[in-house]
Amino acid sequence: MKISILKNVLNESIQHVSKAISSRTTIPILSGIKLDVTYSGVTLTASDTDISIQSFIPSEDEKHTIVQVERPGSVVLPAKFFVEIIKKLPSQEIHMEVKDQFQTFISAGATEIQMVGLDPDEFPVLPNIEGSQTISLPGDLLKNMIKQTVFSISTHETTPILTGVLWSLNNNELKFTATDRHRLATRSANIEGVEDISFNNVVIAGKTLNELSKIIPDQNTLVDIVVADNQVLFKIDRVLFYSRILDGIYPDTSRIIPTTHKTELVLDTKKLSESIDRAYLLSREEKTNIVLLQTMENGGIEISSSSSELGKVREELDLIEFKGDPLRISFNSKYMLDVLKVVESEQLMIAFMGVMSPIILKPLDDSKSQYIILPYRTAN
Amino acid sequence: MKISILKNVLNESIQHVSKAISSRTTIPILSGIKLDVTYSGVTLTASDTDISIQSFIPSEDEKHTIVQVERPGSVVLPAKFFVEIIKKLPSQEIHMEVKDQFQTFISAGATEIQMVGLDPDEFPVLPNIEGSQTISLPGDLLKNMIKQTVFSISTHETTPILTGVLWSLNNNELKFTATDRHRLATRSANIEGVEDISFNNVVIAGKTLNELSKIIPDQNTLVDIVVADNQVLFKIDRVLFYSRILDGIYPDTSRIIPTTHKTELVLDTKKLSESIDRAYLLSREEKTNIVLLQTMENGGIEISSSSSELGKVREELDLIEFKGDPLRISFNSKYMLDVLKVVESEQLMIAFMGVMSPIILKPLDDSKSQYIILPYRTAN
Repeated sequence: MKISILKNVLNESIQHVSKAISSRTTIPILSGIKLDVTYSGVTLTASDTDISIQSFIPSEDEKHTIVQVERPGSVVLPAKFFVEIIKKLPSQEIHMEVKDQFQTFISAGATEIQMVGLDPDEFPVLPNIEGSQTISLPGDLLKNMIKQTVFSISTHETTPILTGVLWSLNNNELKFTATDRHRLATRSANIEGVEDISFNNVVIAGKTLNELSKIIPDQNTLVDIVVADNQVLFKIDRVLFYSRILDGIYPDTSRIIPTTHKTELVLDTKKLSESIDRAYLLSREEKTNIVLLQTMENGGIEISSSSSELGKVREELDLIEFKGDPLRISFNSKYMLDVLKVVESEQLMIAFMGVMSPIILKPLDDSKSQYIILPYRTAN
Repeated sequence: MKISILKNVLNESIQHVSKAISSRTTIPILSGIKLDVTYSGVTLTASDTDISIQSFIPSEDEKHTIVQVERPGSVVLPAKFFVEIIKKLPSQEIHMEVKDQFQTFISAGATEIQMVGLDPDEFPVLPNIEGSQTISLPGDLLKNMIKQTVFSISTHETTPILTGVLWSLNNNELKFTATDRHRLATRSANIEGVEDISFNNVVIAGKTLNELSKIIPDQNTLVDIVVADNQVLFKIDRVLFYSRILDGIYPDTSRIIPTTHKTELVLDTKKLSESIDRAYLLSREEKTNIVLLQTMENGGIEISSSSSELGKVREELDLIEFKGDPLRISFNSKYMLDVLKVVESEQLMIAFMGVMSPIILKPLDDSKSQYIILPYRTAN
C-alpha cells in the first residue's frame, strides 16, 4: 500500500469511524482502524463488535484528486495515535506507505512517522446484510425521533433489553419506544414506500443511537436503513454504520398507556418548563426530585417543592385549557424536565387518570409523540 | 431586612462571591452567602477560610435605582440553592424579606420562595488589613503574570509551600516564581510608585490565583493589592478578594538558574510548539513524555520520540540562530508544551549548559519571563 491523500478528507473519515472504537477493548486488533486501498479509493473501518463503522474516501470527487494510489493494499493502524497525529500534521498532503511486517511510514512536511501496523486479515469481517428489507428516512427526522425517545431508556444492565429503543414498523408507521419502567417515551412517523415491510422487535442500544446521531449531518440527508435478523445497517452518504440488534423480547408497553382520563390541562411548554425547573432545583437537594402539581380554584395550577433544610418553592401558572376534575399529584420533576427539553411544540397537553395513575404528556403538534411518567405515591 | 433588587446585578455579584464557596466545607455557616443591607446598598460575602470574597451593590448607579431598601438587615442564605435559583427567576425585579428566625421570602413574578436563613452573626469576620502596604497593577498584566507562572506549581500536598506562587517586590520590580522541583517559571514586571515597599516571602496558593484571574475583567481595570502579614487583599472595582498567605519559607531558587551556557538556539515559537506536540502525542502513550532534541549538521534541529508498541515520530526544524556546541538532550515534553502555551512572543531562545544541566527557555520579547526545565537522564 502506497498513497498520497488530503489531510482534511482523511481526517473527516477518521472522525466518523473513530466513534466505533472502544478504549476498553480486550481484543488488540479492535483498538485499530483498518485501511483498505484500491485504485478507486480508501475504505476506513472500525469496530467494537456492537457497532462497526465504515467510511469510503473516493480517489476523486467532481473537482479534485483526493487520493493518489501508487500501490493498493491494507493495514490496521493503532486508532488513538493515528486519530490524533493525522489531525496535527503540518501539511495538507500526506504520504503513506506500508512496508515489511505492516510497518507504516507516514510523512507530511518535515514530519516523519513510523507506525507499528497490524495484519488486516485479523480484522473482523463486516456482516453482509444487503438485500434485506430497506427503508429510507430523512436524517433530521431520524435524529429527532432518537432525541425524543432515547432519554427514557434504562441505564441498568440488569434489564439489557430496556437499555435499547424499540423500533417497530407496521402499516407505513415507524414507531420508537423507550422505557425504564418509571417512564415511557414514544414517537411515530409515517414513511412512504414501505407497504410490504413490517417488523416488531428491533431493539437498538441507546448509546449506539446517540453515536449514530452524531454522524448524521445537519443538512437534509436521506438515511437508508437495512434491517436484517440481528443487525441493522445505516447508510449515510459514504458512511456505513452497522449495529447489533439487542437480544431478547421487549416488554409489551401497550397496557400501561391509559386510554381515558379524568383531568386534562393545556399549558405553555416554555413556562411550564421554567416553573418545573425552579421547583426541581430545590427537590434535587432532597435527592427525591419530588414536585407537587395541583389545580387551583382560580383555574390555574400551583407547582411546588419543599426541603426541610432549605425551604420551599411555589409557582403559579396559568392554563390555556382545563377540563375535568381538580387534582393534586406528585412526580419526579427530573423525568418531566427530560420530556420538556425535547418537546418542540409551543403547547403541551397533560392528562391524568388519578393520583396513582400514569401522567400522560402530549405535545400539541403533529409530531405524534407521547410521554408517560409514573407518579409518586406520597402520603399528603 | 426588606429590599427590591435587580436580578442581573444581584446575579453578577453572586457569581463573583460564589468562587469562595467550597462544596466540601464542614462548617455549615460557610456553605452560605452573607447579605448585609444598609441604605447605601447590599454587600455579599462568601468565604472558605482560605479565600474570602466580598462584592458591593450600590443602591444607585449613575443612571438607575438598583436596590430599593425598605428595611436594612443581614442574613446568611444557603449558597448553592441561592446561586442557582436567582439565575432562573422569571422577572428582573426581585423582592426579598427576612422574617422571624431568618426565614427569608423571595418573590419574582409568580414565583415565591421561602429559604431557611442562618444567623449572620455566626459568619466569620473578614480581616482588617487596610493601611498596610498597597501596590496597583493593571488587571491584564496581573492575569498574564499569573498565567505565565502558575502552571509550574507543585500539586503535591507534601510540600505545601510549593503549591503557591512566590511574590517578591524589590526596587520597583515585582517578580512571580513557581516551581515543582522539576521545572521553574519566573515572570517580572516593573511597577511605579512603590519605591518604599518591598517584600520577599509572600506565597499565594495557585488555586487562589486561578480564581482571582476569573474575577478580573478583561477590560483594563486597575487592581489594588494590599499586602499584610498573613493576608493579601485584592480590590477589583467593587469586589474585595482576600487570600491567606501560605505558611513556610519558599526555597531559594536562585542557585538552580544557570548563569552561563554552551549552546544557544533561537526558534519560531509556534513551529516548535507544533513539533513538540506531535512528538508528545507518542511519548504520552509510553507514559514518560520523553522527547529527544538534537542539533543537526545542516544547522537545524531534530525532535523525536519513540514507543516500542506504536512507532516513532521524527521532526526537522529550522533554526533562526544557532550558537555554541552541538547537543543531544532528552526532556519531559509536557513541561515544554506547558511553557510554549503561555509564551506570547513569536521567537524563543533555548539555552543549554550540557545534557545533565537545566534547560533555559526565554521568550524574545520584553515580558521578562524565564522558564527552566530539568532534563531526563537517559542512557542514549
